[in-house]
Amino acid sequence: MPGLIQSIERSSAVLRLLATGPGRLRVKEIADALGLPKSTAQSILRTLTHIGFAEQDPRTARYRLGRALLDLGSTGLDANELRARALNWADALASRSGEEVHVGALRDGGVLVVHHVFRPDDSAQSMDTGRVVPPHATALGQVLLAYQAAAAEDAVAAGLTAYTRGTVTNRRDLARQLAATRAQGWALSVEQWQPGRAGIAAPLRTFGGLVAGAIGVSGPVERLCDTRRQARPALVEHVVAAARSISRDLAGS
Amino acid sequence: MPGLIQSIERSSAVLRLLATGPGRLRVKEIADALGLPKSTAQSILRTLTHIGFAEQDPRTARYRLGRALLDLGSTGLDANELRARALNWADALASRSGEEVHVGALRDGGVLVVHHVFRPDDSAQSMDTGRVVPPHATALGQVLLAYQAAAAEDAVAAGLTAYTRGTVTNRRDLARQLAATRAQGWALSVEQWQPGRAGIAAPLRTFGGLVAGAIGVSGPVERLCDTRRQARPALVEHVVAAARSISRDLAGS
Repeated sequence: MPGLIQSIERSSAVLRLLATGPGRLRVKEIADALGLPKSTAQSILRTLTHIGFAEQDPRTARYRLGRALLDLGSTGLDANELRARALNWADALASRSGEEVHVGALRDGGVLVVHHVFRPDDSAQSMDTGRVVPPHATALGQVLLAYQAAAAEDAVAAGLTAYTRGTVTNRRDLARQLAATRAQGWALSVEQWQPGRAGIAAPLRTFGGLVAGAIGVSGPVERLCDTRRQARPALVEHVVAAARSISRDLAGS
Repeated sequence: MPGLIQSIERSSAVLRLLATGPGRLRVKEIADALGLPKSTAQSILRTLTHIGFAEQDPRTARYRLGRALLDLGSTGLDANELRARALNWADALASRSGEEVHVGALRDGGVLVVHHVFRPDDSAQSMDTGRVVPPHATALGQVLLAYQAAAAEDAVAAGLTAYTRGTVTNRRDLARQLAATRAQGWALSVEQWQPGRAGIAAPLRTFGGLVAGAIGVSGPVERLCDTRRQARPALVEHVVAAARSISRDLAGS
């Protein structure tokens, strides 16, 4: 049938085989079953293992179905894992940008801050890790909603609370803001949550391009934006570069 | 990470998205989420729908996870479907070969005959549809075991009953026979189940190369084999051609 992607068909056939012969199949047996060269079966199994859909028993070298298949609804990354992967890059971003850095992920309709690096100066700051912030009013949240249409619908359905006069409070404006975020690959939020403050954030992508979190800097509007309230290009570059580095780590993990 | 297959990673990302936004995502939203061109997302969704891992709501055109994901252990084909697909080709094979034709699939350790076409002459014959025959002793069964290593292990574990002096009754001989079947792509069984009778069978493959059944002819040894008890090449060609035609149908369905 034209237009179908052969490797996806093959991978589903491998998964069905694993389901019928749990924990008992070697690469060779899978290749034999599907009439594939062993190297092709190996590539498919390596990929399925990487994404958690298959697992290899280290003792017997045989394959079985992976846990991620049973837990499809998650991105396959819990908060601790995301935090662990982002840790070093978040520190580097804080020192390069001179601003405080947050890493967040969507949880139950809010943005859970999984990591927070203070602004690298001696100012008094309070730890935000573990805090939940509103997705529609923050740059971190807008990035997450931009790539998760279902979550954006949920946010609208839950009601878009107005925190400031700048908060986006209707469906159409939110859709426009999220489309702009997707088009440029990062989000800017200026006084939408807290007066006098702005944020710049970019998506953290895991395998297949799936957005598993966001990283961003935040601070006073005059530090993050120019006089026309546009994001300072150098800061955007730092945020996007950090997001790319973490994404590479996540996709390769 | 080198050696990974991008389209499989992407398809798993699509499945995770579908799991988080059940029944609510359009192609465009999925493409946006993963940063893919819409045409690429469309190809992935078309393939996932084809293999039953995704479903499109005909009313809303939105996607959700497919039933086949919940039912990974099956080949996605029940006996009726396999029978329906094989019907016309089985008739044609019977008339071309002049022999009776069986279509079978593994069920609970046996070969369930899902379709039976009588030899096209006026001889008295009894209907085998619904009957279960031993996998290790028949050509149909050997084809099925050859491509399903777990089923072959089960057959050995269950004990290889000797029906004739020719029945393969030990693990090593069975492994050799199955390897030969894979190498040539079809199976010949001569007096391994019933004295005086032989069978020739080939695999029915669905998407990804998964073997979902087998089709074969059977009859007196002297009709199916030459004087050296080798399968008659013309008959093998008919069986293999019929199997290929049905496989094309199954993979394209």
